[in-house]
Amino acid sequence: MDENEKRLQQQLEFLLEVDKMKQILRQTHIRGGSKRENDAEHSWHLALMAFLLDEHANEKVDVLRVMQMVLIHDLVEIDAGDTYAYDVEGNKTKRQREIKAADRIFGILPEDQGVFLRGLWEEFEEYKTPEAQYAHVLDNFQPLLLNHDNQGIDWKKHDVKKSQIVKRNEKVWSGSSQIWKCMEKIIQKNVELGNIIEDC
Amino acid sequence: MDENEKRLQQQLEFLLEVDKMKQILRQTHIRGGSKRENDAEHSWHLALMAFLLDEHANEKVDVLRVMQMVLIHDLVEIDAGDTYAYDVEGNKTKRQREIKAADRIFGILPEDQGVFLRGLWEEFEEYKTPEAQYAHVLDNFQPLLLNHDNQGIDWKKHDVKKSQIVKRNEKVWSGSSQIWKCMEKIIQKNVELGNIIEDC
Repeated sequence: MDENEKRLQQQLEFLLEVDKMKQILRQTHIRGGSKRENDAEHSWHLALMAFLLDEHANEKVDVLRVMQMVLIHDLVEIDAGDTYAYDVEGNKTKRQREIKAADRIFGILPEDQGVFLRGLWEEFEEYKTPEAQYAHVLDNFQPLLLNHDNQGIDWKKHDVKKSQIVKRNEKVWSGSSQIWKCMEKIIQKNVELGNIIEDC
Repeated sequence: MDENEKRLQQQLEFLLEVDKMKQILRQTHIRGGSKRENDAEHSWHLALMAFLLDEHANEKVDVLRVMQMVLIHDLVEIDAGDTYAYDVEGNKTKRQREIKAADRIFGILPEDQGVFLRGLWEEFEEYKTPEAQYAHVLDNFQPLLLNHDNQGIDWKKHDVKKSQIVKRNEKVWSGSSQIWKCMEKIIQKNVELGNIIEDC
């Protein structure tokens, strides 16, 4: 087996491993509410948003890098599971579980590609570059959009308070003030509709 | 409402409309065979493959363009439905159904973006540019990989013949001779295992 074939074998092993994303369920429901969304569906949606909404980012972003970032940002959940945004206990151990997952999953790839994907994931987690900030905007906006369209079913199920949503999204404005403006309107509307508990 | 807000509203309408991709089932099963794959999951997988396997493309490709292409290549199925590769009758009316779908779906976006996505889709369909050829490689390779990993369940269910698979994939070599070599091995192995009917 030559080097090229060996690389392809490692890449295919990785691509089959990450197929598990299609079975990791998030709390958010798809449009219409018939089922919960999985990580693969969510990541596809974000990648599409990445290149359709980039005009609304505060700073010019490298769209290719953002797309790669959102496509892989949840891969660690294959081992670490999805931790709901408002799960206090789960979020305490989240980082530790996810680092261990990143070591294993990105380690399946040829080394250069594993290092690249690990770097993308760390960049996303660190939330500092314009690309990471914009990727987080999308990651926060997409479930809000679906939940709003679904008459707030997920907020109502989990008795979510306005203060929790505002806190979770407090950095969205740093990635896109335009999208944050839109999100604020959606949040306010759902508070008025009683889908989100008003506490601030 | 200013121009920027109006564009955002059109983009969000589009993004909610295409959520339907999460309910369009393909014939291929996900790894492990527990459920059929949907178009959103499939498109996510292809976008990931696009930037991990580009070293195997015969010609250097614009990876961003390929990723955009594979993320949107099946959107027309929202109206036109998924036509199985080996469905002779369905394939007769496929093109006509898909053009009508493209008009409606891409038409939801701001005009410049609608034209861009329509162009990407037409480029994919025309199968001429290195990007379109490589995108088709991924689109053909991914279900083969899953089906092989699933002990050929989908081939067996549909009594698929080797000649059908070879014909369907006859242009893969033009996008990636390296991947075609790998696909040929997988096909041959599944013929030997009795998962694919040997007829050529």
